[in-house]
Amino acid sequence: MNIEHPTMIIDEQICKRNLHNMVEKAIRNSLVLRPHFKTHQSAEIGDWFRAAGIKKITVSSVRMAEYFAAAGWQDITIAFPVNLLEWHRIHKLAEQIDLQIIIASEGVLENLPDGAGSVGAFIKVDVGTHRTGIDPTNHRVMDELVAALMKRSDLQFKGFLAHAGHSYACRDKGCVQLVHDESRKLMIALRNRYSSQVPGMTISLGDTPTCSICEGWEGVDEIRPGNFIFYDLTQWLIGSCDLSDIAVALACPVVAKHRERKTIIVYGGGVHLSKDRMEWQDKVIYGLPVLLSEDGWSLPDEESCVVSLSQEHGVIQASSDLFDRVGIGDILGILPVHSCMACDLMKKYQVIGGKEIQMMTT
Amino acid sequence: MNIEHPTMIIDEQICKRNLHNMVEKAIRNSLVLRPHFKTHQSAEIGDWFRAAGIKKITVSSVRMAEYFAAAGWQDITIAFPVNLLEWHRIHKLAEQIDLQIIIASEGVLENLPDGAGSVGAFIKVDVGTHRTGIDPTNHRVMDELVAALMKRSDLQFKGFLAHAGHSYACRDKGCVQLVHDESRKLMIALRNRYSSQVPGMTISLGDTPTCSICEGWEGVDEIRPGNFIFYDLTQWLIGSCDLSDIAVALACPVVAKHRERKTIIVYGGGVHLSKDRMEWQDKVIYGLPVLLSEDGWSLPDEESCVVSLSQEHGVIQASSDLFDRVGIGDILGILPVHSCMACDLMKKYQVIGGKEIQMMTT
Repeated sequence: MNIEHPTMIIDEQICKRNLHNMVEKAIRNSLVLRPHFKTHQSAEIGDWFRAAGIKKITVSSVRMAEYFAAAGWQDITIAFPVNLLEWHRIHKLAEQIDLQIIIASEGVLENLPDGAGSVGAFIKVDVGTHRTGIDPTNHRVMDELVAALMKRSDLQFKGFLAHAGHSYACRDKGCVQLVHDESRKLMIALRNRYSSQVPGMTISLGDTPTCSICEGWEGVDEIRPGNFIFYDLTQWLIGSCDLSDIAVALACPVVAKHRERKTIIVYGGGVHLSKDRMEWQDKVIYGLPVLLSEDGWSLPDEESCVVSLSQEHGVIQASSDLFDRVGIGDILGILPVHSCMACDLMKKYQVIGGKEIQMMTT
Repeated sequence: MNIEHPTMIIDEQICKRNLHNMVEKAIRNSLVLRPHFKTHQSAEIGDWFRAAGIKKITVSSVRMAEYFAAAGWQDITIAFPVNLLEWHRIHKLAEQIDLQIIIASEGVLENLPDGAGSVGAFIKVDVGTHRTGIDPTNHRVMDELVAALMKRSDLQFKGFLAHAGHSYACRDKGCVQLVHDESRKLMIALRNRYSSQVPGMTISLGDTPTCSICEGWEGVDEIRPGNFIFYDLTQWLIGSCDLSDIAVALACPVVAKHRERKTIIVYGGGVHLSKDRMEWQDKVIYGLPVLLSEDGWSLPDEESCVVSLSQEHGVIQASSDLFDRVGIGDILGILPVHSCMACDLMKKYQVIGGKEIQMMTT
């Protein structure tokens, strides 16, 4: 590998396997797979999805919607509370493609300018994460919002959308299944309450943990996982994937070694991996080191981990074996805690074999 | 302000006041101020330093050195353990400017190719942070390294450099002064031990907390603070600055409000602020909200704070007053926990008044 500074390596084969598995699961459960593209943010990786039969996608910003629309995507949901200040861009984009926005709280719809044309709108439902969205058990608010949406001739009310983000607090599959069952129950209740009023509505649900792990999707029309294309250590901890399913690793030059502490210092810090962290073996860690080879990387050992990050430095607490095997000037891989955040920082990928893949720029 | 999505606002007047104060302190203490430019990463902001009489700078990567050399800086220290894999670039750059690298552990010098020409080299000293650097009390290792460096005709041994990063764990000025006194004592011992062997050596020390707070700089030649140009909440918590000295705020559109939890949801997440966090009033927080105006921003109230960040969402736990004053579609400012990391993510600034300032791109 021709690497001299921190570089995000991507294993195309693992990505395509992860994609294939999710496509198969969607087909088995009669679900529309509308993958979230905020994870990879790349038109070229988007083409892998297109080749797998995907036609509809999810993004997290208006700019990301514009980028993927320019790359030929014709049906995009911006799964982030609609930003009134970007209304002119949303309006313009909706003239070109099928675009859906989400309404996540009271006080939005009445401030949305008239004349949106053909913008689709989902009500964002808070199924338990309590970040944003409407409480599905608050019938007064929900009834009013549905009625107000139905009255707008410039918006097409599409249905209900939720993100069970609290599944990320789970550390086993049983917990994720429980989150899913509860979320689905809440969404089905909404469908039942409003189905006569809103025929053909869409129920959109499903993040990477629930879509990777859970069974039982009756009543759900569409899923929107994103992270599964790469997975990461957080998903592994939750139970969404095996370590061998993680498809990205940050390649980091080794710049110092300290035998007295068994630490390896790499060029690869918070500006490359992000400061996202997780607890593992009673430690807070920022990644797990792996040995790179021409065709990929090893699995991490049971002991070595990234124990701290500053702006450009990563500090690896190494096993004796890793410490002795790695020399200054070598390149070490790091499996990220959160691949979405790390890839957003790196802005491009190097496929195993050497080819570069670009991401959107802002 | 013409803002529609997350934008890093910069108060030029506060920056210039912070810069003036640091320049004055350096002059009072007969110190060379070699500011760290990793904080702002901008040639245009670099010009403010030049106008204040600064001639020498610090950076954290070879690419950053190349960027600032192209902007006319002629004396640059890369204060990051030398990356052997970028040796060809270092070598080339050293033909154009005065360039200094650092040696941070055993095993580096013997792997550094011959023929560097006129690259300057510092020994990085571990004054207590235990991230990287040579233990100054380990005379055997230090003697060998100094002797080996003196033998190299292709490297100019410049002296000893340290970063007392453990000052960041302090939460009062007395603690920072103690860290400084101990670091300085260790550096002076090195000067005394090697002064006959290395006449004219430089002792380089000093981060933003110690340079902002501490008195007593005898024996130190050069300081390298970086963050002080902007400061941030971490520096305020340490005691390096007042809240009114913080010169950057992330402007974030308000996209949802949830009265039942008194939360305000802003467009501004981990990809804008970074996931850097701190403890404040027994809570983990990611920033403090402020009200923006045409000429700057208010001070934060005593109650409201950013309690969580996901990729694009920020969740603000608001005081009743803030909750009622801010509407959906408004723009709220957020003072960052760590300005270096947030600015690195944002890649450009908007000066109060509207002008845009660019940063380096990679």
